[in-house]
Amino acid sequence: MIPEPSLRRLPWYLAYARLSQRNGEAVLSSTQIARGVGVEASVVAKDLSYVAVTGRTRVGYDIGELVMYLEDFLGFSTQHKAFLFGVGKLGGALLQDRGLEQFGLDIVAGFDSKYELSGTSINHTPIHHISRFDELQQLMHVEIGVLTVPVDVAQSVAEMLVDNGIRAIWNFTPVRIQVPDNVVVQNTSIYAHLALMYNRMS
Amino acid sequence: MIPEPSLRRLPWYLAYARLSQRNGEAVLSSTQIARGVGVEASVVAKDLSYVAVTGRTRVGYDIGELVMYLEDFLGFSTQHKAFLFGVGKLGGALLQDRGLEQFGLDIVAGFDSKYELSGTSINHTPIHHISRFDELQQLMHVEIGVLTVPVDVAQSVAEMLVDNGIRAIWNFTPVRIQVPDNVVVQNTSIYAHLALMYNRMS
Repeated sequence: MIPEPSLRRLPWYLAYARLSQRNGEAVLSSTQIARGVGVEASVVAKDLSYVAVTGRTRVGYDIGELVMYLEDFLGFSTQHKAFLFGVGKLGGALLQDRGLEQFGLDIVAGFDSKYELSGTSINHTPIHHISRFDELQQLMHVEIGVLTVPVDVAQSVAEMLVDNGIRAIWNFTPVRIQVPDNVVVQNTSIYAHLALMYNRMS
Repeated sequence: MIPEPSLRRLPWYLAYARLSQRNGEAVLSSTQIARGVGVEASVVAKDLSYVAVTGRTRVGYDIGELVMYLEDFLGFSTQHKAFLFGVGKLGGALLQDRGLEQFGLDIVAGFDSKYELSGTSINHTPIHHISRFDELQQLMHVEIGVLTVPVDVAQSVAEMLVDNGIRAIWNFTPVRIQVPDNVVVQNTSIYAHLALMYNRMS
């Protein structure tokens, strides 16, 4: 089981390896990665040992292989089906963002309580009224819910997702949602990051 | 100096306090906040002690006061001027998002290398060609740069920001940018969060 700090660093190595690959490099050493991302070379080597990719002594990692192994390990090369809840500004932007598919997230439908959005689509992803969620979920057995609803309904919508078999919630609201222990919650509250930045600036 | 884990929890308390306020509550105890956000009551009390807001024994915090003190402490009630670099999908969505102003971030201009974007605006925020950055920076002395450029130019754009007096970079790219020690970098790579979620699901 990889420790979380290592897991958090792997995407940096992947970004750096992809850049090097685009710049025409063929091999990459731990030392080069370390310099590129600002981490000790021993830490890079240790982190990459979890990924089971093996570099050659005094040569380094084959970049194509490194990128492929990292993408596999991070779950980016498998498509994970997801539903998105709350098609406001942020929800709409996420539906627009085809980048998510490159990272393994396939949002197959959006749901909203606004009737005027039902039957529309964003970038070929259909938007349905929220009342149709359980019916579509019975057909599709989606495991991931992206939560971009207003704060006052975040908890109740989260409960509805869990009741209908959603196993993981990507929570973009600043609300600390309460769910059973077996449900994974990934909090991505960008506003909380602002507070961290302001604090460190002063 | 508040420890980072405490600082990370304060926005949850703020979100919960705002919700309670909207639901017509007037006071809130540490125990209620604790239950609402799923943290021990003693932790909530300790975290709030940094904010210098004082509750009354057996009554709790005045919600209006609590919200005001938290917003002040987190830097959300002061407007921080920022420039945004890279007006693509994500950059455009951030310019659209008036929510950022409620959290103290005032993006006063966007910059992009695409000439066809120069002179346009998104939600009243003007977009300029990147070549005009140093000229506008000399007039405006902006301290925060929001980085939403493509990965292959993330490092070079970051260096240009630092050279022109930007003190804090909100980095949305997956690139681990290298900057001098006195520059604050807040990384918000939403794709890295996906890897964490996939890993915990399996």
